[in-house]
Amino acid sequence: MASYWGKHIHISVFGQSHAPAIGVAVDGLPAGEAVDLDKLQTFLQRRAPGRDSTSTPRKEGDVPEILCGLAEGRTCGAPLAAVIRNTNTRSKDYSELRDKPRPAHADYTAQVKYRGFQDVAGGGHFSGRLTAPLCVAGGIALQILARRGIHIGAHIRSIANAEDRPFQPLGEPLEVLDEVKRASFPVLEAQAGEHMRAAILQAREAGDSVGGVVECIVQGVPVGLGSPMFQGLEGQLAAALFAIPAVKGVEFGAGFEAARMKGSEHNDPFVMEGGAVRTQTNHAGGILGGISDGMPILFRAAFKPTPSIAQTQRTVRLSTESETELQITGRHDPCIVPRAVPVVEAVAALVLLDALLDRNADQI
Amino acid sequence: MASYWGKHIHISVFGQSHAPAIGVAVDGLPAGEAVDLDKLQTFLQRRAPGRDSTSTPRKEGDVPEILCGLAEGRTCGAPLAAVIRNTNTRSKDYSELRDKPRPAHADYTAQVKYRGFQDVAGGGHFSGRLTAPLCVAGGIALQILARRGIHIGAHIRSIANAEDRPFQPLGEPLEVLDEVKRASFPVLEAQAGEHMRAAILQAREAGDSVGGVVECIVQGVPVGLGSPMFQGLEGQLAAALFAIPAVKGVEFGAGFEAARMKGSEHNDPFVMEGGAVRTQTNHAGGILGGISDGMPILFRAAFKPTPSIAQTQRTVRLSTESETELQITGRHDPCIVPRAVPVVEAVAALVLLDALLDRNADQI
Amino acid sequence: MASYWGKHIHISVFGQSHAPAIGVAVDGLPAGEAVDLDKLQTFLQRRAPGRDSTSTPRKEGDVPEILCGLAEGRTCGAPLAAVIRNTNTRSKDYSELRDKPRPAHADYTAQVKYRGFQDVAGGGHFSGRLTAPLCVAGGIALQILARRGIHIGAHIRSIANAEDRPFQPLGEPLEVLDEVKRASFPVLEAQAGEHMRAAILQAREAGDSVGGVVECIVQGVPVGLGSPMFQGLEGQLAAALFAIPAVKGVEFGAGFEAARMKGSEHNDPFVMEGGAVRTQTNHAGGILGGISDGMPILFRAAFKPTPSIAQTQRTVRLSTESETELQITGRHDPCIVPRAVPVVEAVAALVLLDALLDRNADQI
Amino acid sequence: MASYWGKHIHISVFGQSHAPAIGVAVDGLPAGEAVDLDKLQTFLQRRAPGRDSTSTPRKEGDVPEILCGLAEGRTCGAPLAAVIRNTNTRSKDYSELRDKPRPAHADYTAQVKYRGFQDVAGGGHFSGRLTAPLCVAGGIALQILARRGIHIGAHIRSIANAEDRPFQPLGEPLEVLDEVKRASFPVLEAQAGEHMRAAILQAREAGDSVGGVVECIVQGVPVGLGSPMFQGLEGQLAAALFAIPAVKGVEFGAGFEAARMKGSEHNDPFVMEGGAVRTQTNHAGGILGGISDGMPILFRAAFKPTPSIAQTQRTVRLSTESETELQITGRHDPCIVPRAVPVVEAVAALVLLDALLDRNADQI
Repeated sequence: MASYWGKHIHISVFGQSHAPAIGVAVDGLPAGEAVDLDKLQTFLQRRAPGRDSTSTPRKEGDVPEILCGLAEGRTCGAPLAAVIRNTNTRSKDYSELRDKPRPAHADYTAQVKYRGFQDVAGGGHFSGRLTAPLCVAGGIALQILARRGIHIGAHIRSIANAEDRPFQPLGEPLEVLDEVKRASFPVLEAQAGEHMRAAILQAREAGDSVGGVVECIVQGVPVGLGSPMFQGLEGQLAAALFAIPAVKGVEFGAGFEAARMKGSEHNDPFVMEGGAVRTQTNHAGGILGGISDGMPILFRAAFKPTPSIAQTQRTVRLSTESETELQITGRHDPCIVPRAVPVVEAVAALVLLDALLDRNADQI
Repeated sequence: MASYWGKHIHISVFGQSHAPAIGVAVDGLPAGEAVDLDKLQTFLQRRAPGRDSTSTPRKEGDVPEILCGLAEGRTCGAPLAAVIRNTNTRSKDYSELRDKPRPAHADYTAQVKYRGFQDVAGGGHFSGRLTAPLCVAGGIALQILARRGIHIGAHIRSIANAEDRPFQPLGEPLEVLDEVKRASFPVLEAQAGEHMRAAILQAREAGDSVGGVVECIVQGVPVGLGSPMFQGLEGQLAAALFAIPAVKGVEFGAGFEAARMKGSEHNDPFVMEGGAVRTQTNHAGGILGGISDGMPILFRAAFKPTPSIAQTQRTVRLSTESETELQITGRHDPCIVPRAVPVVEAVAALVLLDALLDRNADQI
Repeated sequence: MASYWGKHIHISVFGQSHAPAIGVAVDGLPAGEAVDLDKLQTFLQRRAPGRDSTSTPRKEGDVPEILCGLAEGRTCGAPLAAVIRNTNTRSKDYSELRDKPRPAHADYTAQVKYRGFQDVAGGGHFSGRLTAPLCVAGGIALQILARRGIHIGAHIRSIANAEDRPFQPLGEPLEVLDEVKRASFPVLEAQAGEHMRAAILQAREAGDSVGGVVECIVQGVPVGLGSPMFQGLEGQLAAALFAIPAVKGVEFGAGFEAARMKGSEHNDPFVMEGGAVRTQTNHAGGILGGISDGMPILFRAAFKPTPSIAQTQRTVRLSTESETELQITGRHDPCIVPRAVPVVEAVAALVLLDALLDRNADQI
Repeated sequence: MASYWGKHIHISVFGQSHAPAIGVAVDGLPAGEAVDLDKLQTFLQRRAPGRDSTSTPRKEGDVPEILCGLAEGRTCGAPLAAVIRNTNTRSKDYSELRDKPRPAHADYTAQVKYRGFQDVAGGGHFSGRLTAPLCVAGGIALQILARRGIHIGAHIRSIANAEDRPFQPLGEPLEVLDEVKRASFPVLEAQAGEHMRAAILQAREAGDSVGGVVECIVQGVPVGLGSPMFQGLEGQLAAALFAIPAVKGVEFGAGFEAARMKGSEHNDPFVMEGGAVRTQTNHAGGILGGISDGMPILFRAAFKPTPSIAQTQRTVRLSTESETELQITGRHDPCIVPRAVPVVEAVAALVLLDALLDRNADQI
């Protein structure tokens, strides 16, 4: 298990879906940073269920209690810890999951790794619910970055075959990013959102689920964050993004499309713009040699369809080593992509804040 | 700068393209492992230039000297260090690169980050040449893994629009992987290779370059390697893969395609096969909840086209803050993808060996 | 700030003396380990105040709430988090400490490092109270180690000039270690305890304080834990011990006395004992080349006298850059050494458990 | 094995006593720092053997080759790597050491840990020779620190029962530190040096060895380096100091003596001095709450006597599990303390430089 992350901002995420609580400890936050708890709560609401009619109707408060790390509303240099109580604990019998693993879930791999001692209730530590504390940490990072002119926004780029327009690689007006944040369904084009919602509702009716792609843009990044090789910004972002359950692919700038391009098309020419060095296009996604080049950082994360579906599925019974069938009951999100949008922003914020602090450690 | 990596296997890569040498220190190799230096050299030759007529005709020896870490041909528990001398040092004047950054290279970002003190000759520490020591470390890891029945193979999945057939997600015969390793152009289907080579030669003639995708498969992985969240196998692999220059996207199993699938299509049903739990399909790419599920680990990395092209490009002159043009001279690989194939294998081997050792640290 | 520690067992300690809570997240505990909460509470009581008439009469419950990490009373592989509520929060005005730093406290250094944003109430994150969560983590580690035959005990070696007899370097009967654990004043010889208590009470009456030395023994350690150089057992233990407030020295085996010895006196001859390799003496303190040699690990930590004393002290007023005097009020332990004994055991347990898990990662 | 260290300055030490080479890779050096190679060589000479008639007469060049990391004589941001060739490789048969471990050496613990695969020649990776690359890294750090007004000096505080005068806790004139550095026998008082040399020569004649204490002072440290708990300066320094072979104890300021003091004696009163906050005494050794307080950092490290002695010693034969005797031949330093003085300075420099860079990462 390694549910901690970071070099300067160091977060330790803890909790299981049906344990008394989930939470996070965040070490290394610069002292003196105001934390606006209302703003944080507004951010957390974006990943809460029940925000749009396509998501699971279950309601959870998800109000974090800040246990420490603040003094008079500002970070005090000491680790900040926050916990969110689980109201919904061990309400039913999950023990069958030890024996009949759900396809595309971590039931089987956890059973082997933890030799049957893992907490299976509600997915235990593998639950998407663990993204809530991630959002607490990331939400605070977002506030710190915004104060330095670094703004992060994400939207649903696609769900099933329905696509939103991509972010403009050279940057979006901040109003556009803000609008997406306020929307109950985070897309740039309302029409695209309708198609996506239709695909989700259709999947739900069929006892099925759908996946999608989240696109994220980071604007206002200074030149020079990151490093070559193992501390490159792409690798740092990717490593953290894959910590979000269901992410199966990450790409930057032109991404996989770059593999089809010619150098003459892909190379972003340098230009002068208002006295600053910029690139005319942004196929690089704002990162050259692992280091930010001053253009918006642009990336996409692919989410697989929700593994919990109502349809009968084939699986095995581990105790008898025989094949069997499984019917998952209960209410599940037929698509977790809309709720994943703020989680992607949170992760991006943590990585960028860490990179910003790391830059300072380069010089004396 | 953070050119080190790993929790158990800890590598420190050093060197610049035109410094006296490049090399690597590898800490944490289990003691008692035989290192077959001939086999290692054969592996290194796969990334050496001039192997196929499409690559740069420049020849380099790239024979590493093992400075320490072995006793009587076996790892002795102490760090292993290897250096490769650079024969081609500072032959011409690179100083213009400080002022006129090459598009899509790290010249500009390095200039800002290192305030003009970076070594620009031949790309310095950003050079693809630094993948040679990575291959030394990875080549040793490959030998250790093979002894445990873990086999890694990669091929060119595509270059420009030419595509090789994908690996079979349920696994390839080892002979097939071996054959690709021996081939001068590493593809599964000869025909596909011809199309790719044609695309490369065409790009070269046009003073241009092309990108591509490398696909990698890891077979024989036991169930239970990796962890949820930040030490998940996907994140660990991605973080290390993005350390390879020019990688702009990484995906596992169905990857970005998973975002278009329904849960009922994507979920891999568990089945019994010869007394073992397996999945009937492998859209997960062998990883569930960040942990290996016993199926082949399958992933792809997208490489952007070589940034060095012969065509005139637009750039800026930093000293005068004005726009200008740039013509890159010298011989360059019009496509680095074929030489990247063993590098991807090397990186995969390091991550898998680290995960294998980490599993042991889970239990007492 | 870096209040996290460990390679395999990874702990994140959080909290301030007067924040809502203090606590710890512990990642990497092996799955399936029973946690006896009563035993844990008994252990925690040993560092609680008011146990002996020499310590501060203030009573705190210090009952940790386990938020997660357990399933059916056993570790489940997920991080374990525990919090202890602070009942005693911000009862008085501490703001003067920002301006008039207390000698030998961290008031001044924190003021500079955190630029005035640090939480000064009750010492904030620098408070000895933070050793309570350390004991929660260490108390669990002690239980896991005891199940593997590794037993840790500590006693007060000296307070002021009063000395207890040293541990026998070749090992103590476990009954002796248990007896010290049950004692209200943890010494081996009752007479020595009386002298120490007299010294403490005398200091209290004089408005003064005293320091002392804690000695710790770890028995049942297998040969081969630790590593040369930076992961040597001495360095690992020392690094963690200095995290306990007031520790100013750490020594192993003969320690500083070794510097006065001849090689012929100091070298521990190897002998065979019941079929096992042992040493005839144990000046090495059970560690050779950073690696455990199978003999008891023996070390001592020196604690400075409690910095809070009732006597008037000289200090400065930072705002006016002038010299002034300071009178610390309130009740303080005139000697924290007795309460530090279980903290030293806790720290030793965490380091040894980490080293035990690390050994497994050496081999595949 | 974990022969790497550091958060910002990251060093990887490699090599065995009789391998082709030993060396170090240093990542994270700030770019643009001039490296004076002559000055570095002068520093390295201080740990070379044969400098004083009391040390082993064997001469080694110990001239490091810088493989990379510099461009035009300055650090270029890329890792710096240096190797030192071993001229003296495998000249005799060391295989008996696998079976008959030398008392107080790591022969036995290495044999168990590395299952017989360790390199025993000359002590392998456990050899004191590995402090040479440590001095290369530390020697560069010393130059960088000196440019910022941070000066580090060490001397022999004692050998056997002969004692030099201690450093003045409030600081020494830099001339004094320089003088010790130039001396062939590094003490403050010539008379004390004579007594020490006599003790060493007497031990040599008796086929014996002696230990000692090295004291180190770091002057010019700004207030605010370090952190509470696990990244406290004491813990960071101690962890690194115990990586030096033969160190068995480390203490700061008053150290173990503090355990005998009263608070009213030990607490250092704050005073104003030339507009700056200082302390009137320096029992804290310049560190309060793990953080530098602006006073000189003062610490001592205890070295055990050289384990290799000419006298016959008792040991065991592992293959037959029987007791036997051992006679170590060859020439050995009867006291390694004089040569350890620059090693202690090197380690202090690395820790301080790391702490200096870490401070920058605290703020944005």
